[in-house]
Amino acid sequence: MRPSRDGLSSVETAVSWIDAVARRLDRESVPLLEAARRVLADDIRVQRPIPACDAAALDGFAVSADETIGASTYNPLHLPAIEVAAGAALPAGMNAVVPLDHAEPDDAGRVIVVDALAPGDNVDRQGASIISEGLLISGGTLLGPRHIGICAAAAVTQLPVVRRPRVRIVSAGTPRAGATDSDGPMLRSLIERDGGIVSEHVTVERSRSALSQALAAGGSHIVLLVGGTGKGRDDESAPALAAAGELAIHGIALRPGETVGLGRTSAGAPVVLLPGPPAACLWAYELFAGRAIRRLGGRVLELPHRSSVVTTTRKIVSSIGMTEICPVACRPEGSVEPVAPFAEIGLMAAVGADGFIIIPQTSEGYPPGASVNVYLYDC
Amino acid sequence: MRPSRDGLSSVETAVSWIDAVARRLDRESVPLLEAARRVLADDIRVQRPIPACDAAALDGFAVSADETIGASTYNPLHLPAIEVAAGAALPAGMNAVVPLDHAEPDDAGRVIVVDALAPGDNVDRQGASIISEGLLISGGTLLGPRHIGICAAAAVTQLPVVRRPRVRIVSAGTPRAGATDSDGPMLRSLIERDGGIVSEHVTVERSRSALSQALAAGGSHIVLLVGGTGKGRDDESAPALAAAGELAIHGIALRPGETVGLGRTSAGAPVVLLPGPPAACLWAYELFAGRAIRRLGGRVLELPHRSSVVTTTRKIVSSIGMTEICPVACRPEGSVEPVAPFAEIGLMAAVGADGFIIIPQTSEGYPPGASVNVYLYDC
Repeated sequence: MRPSRDGLSSVETAVSWIDAVARRLDRESVPLLEAARRVLADDIRVQRPIPACDAAALDGFAVSADETIGASTYNPLHLPAIEVAAGAALPAGMNAVVPLDHAEPDDAGRVIVVDALAPGDNVDRQGASIISEGLLISGGTLLGPRHIGICAAAAVTQLPVVRRPRVRIVSAGTPRAGATDSDGPMLRSLIERDGGIVSEHVTVERSRSALSQALAAGGSHIVLLVGGTGKGRDDESAPALAAAGELAIHGIALRPGETVGLGRTSAGAPVVLLPGPPAACLWAYELFAGRAIRRLGGRVLELPHRSSVVTTTRKIVSSIGMTEICPVACRPEGSVEPVAPFAEIGLMAAVGADGFIIIPQTSEGYPPGASVNVYLYDC
Repeated sequence: MRPSRDGLSSVETAVSWIDAVARRLDRESVPLLEAARRVLADDIRVQRPIPACDAAALDGFAVSADETIGASTYNPLHLPAIEVAAGAALPAGMNAVVPLDHAEPDDAGRVIVVDALAPGDNVDRQGASIISEGLLISGGTLLGPRHIGICAAAAVTQLPVVRRPRVRIVSAGTPRAGATDSDGPMLRSLIERDGGIVSEHVTVERSRSALSQALAAGGSHIVLLVGGTGKGRDDESAPALAAAGELAIHGIALRPGETVGLGRTSAGAPVVLLPGPPAACLWAYELFAGRAIRRLGGRVLELPHRSSVVTTTRKIVSSIGMTEICPVACRPEGSVEPVAPFAEIGLMAAVGADGFIIIPQTSEGYPPGASVNVYLYDC
């Protein structure tokens, strides 16, 4: 592979480092009502069959199928039958259900049946819902509404889930007046999207000792130190991390985001140094911090955007040696075209785009008509 | 179009009814930190330019571009320069930035420059980030992390968003012992997924008067009445709604879910009658209740699953006159195949599936090799 530019580490090297350092957290037990969007830590198995007994699949009359033999509109049979609601247990001796509107009661307490039924017709058989030896849901599943529903049906009221990663945000105090903290609110919503919890957000003075001290505090599974990641006079984040623990990587061939750094606190928690400028902060988060948080929480590692292979209508230029993020707009005919880049309009490039392409550092870009993999924003 | 079976209303008719009755709610103002995943009610425009002034795009030395003319490695120029951090305002008289590692200070307080720069090089121009006449984000946008970030950058601290729909769940008390409420927890997570809030969840006796009374209570934007929707002896939900307000539609050609009903309270709030059996409850929610909640909350109306056109490897059979939901599994080669249906294994069919196909009532299904539109579960 072509080397990254200027002695920067490649995105791939940095991702491998993240994958080696960020390990899935322990399990905890939560009530079913709090389990949505959590990751199941272990397989859920059930001991008892679902349904617990043979049950009516619809509203109707429970009958003995044998007795319906020969029934037809020309030969209506008057049979003993018991009205049942969908989901109700079949009464003893009954093994099929005539739908409510296919039968009617006679005056003698019986029911007139005009169809022959086979045993099991319109019946949910005991145990039929569990296909594979009691396995209800596999460990590692991100729990959605249907999983919550099947657990409730199986009377599973507590679930073992992977702990939510606790994320500490340390903002290196802004060195200039009038600057607003656009990174804090954005990071908070990114972290929540990825299943993490912001356990603390502190702003500290932009000095090596203050930053080192902030990095030494415990209580979180990962620390994001925002700002001061460059090589300028008041950029103290990298030396502070080196002093407080380990600075493993500083400077990655990613644009925007090249001043990002990776390392660990002395207690071993991963630390991501995120650049202060919002667009660089976003992409350093997306490629590294977000992946680490998703790993800690047991989620799938890929970016949480749907991806799709489409055609680009215009040439896309990229620098060899840098992984570049190119914002794109969707065209009505299903292709995409590049829009105003991050280098020109900062974070607004992401706001104006429908999605983005990640152009690897080995590529100079794409000619018009090339197939590209695009990640699309849902929101 | 072919008529629905048995005098049932078509899914299309029911959807049109929902779309006519469920209207987008009013706006409310929320702090930026609470705005993620909310729907913006109005356009956000900014009065002041972003960036507020010409600013350094990267860490470096601010210079006057004119003075760099002629600079090269063979002709290094010693120029007056001021070190700036990325994002910092350009000092007066400076109009370009030399990257930090392309220059170095000499001993005389100046900086040695070896590249000629044009005015604006490595500068974020005042106002450059806002492309279209102050428009930051369009009304109707579902706010994601990048929108939160751009608002923070523009110092927008309160946002006008569409109110979250308040949903009242009324469970018709189960008529049989030992039955568990699998619908309540599942509905709660579906409602939250669609941006709603469960304002109240009550379980009431399964009698017409008790249900009517429960439907008359106010305080919510929509009511979901669960269970008792069939035509059996203890199915009182439809008559209760007719008594308490308006029963507009009862019985829809949807499988699972055909006993679903639609109507309004006397105060005009939409009511969806959801069948009790979990699979039927799920699909009646997905096609009607969920759509109503998404409409109330200003969200896109489509099902919140990504869809994709794929090939089916096996024949899929469906009944004419019924819209049927067919669970499918993804095959490694990108096609799908039908898996155990809802009619056989109930809600477990959704748990075991990777996604589903909605087969319209005009279709008898698909032969192997047909192109079908599949909705894929993310979780």
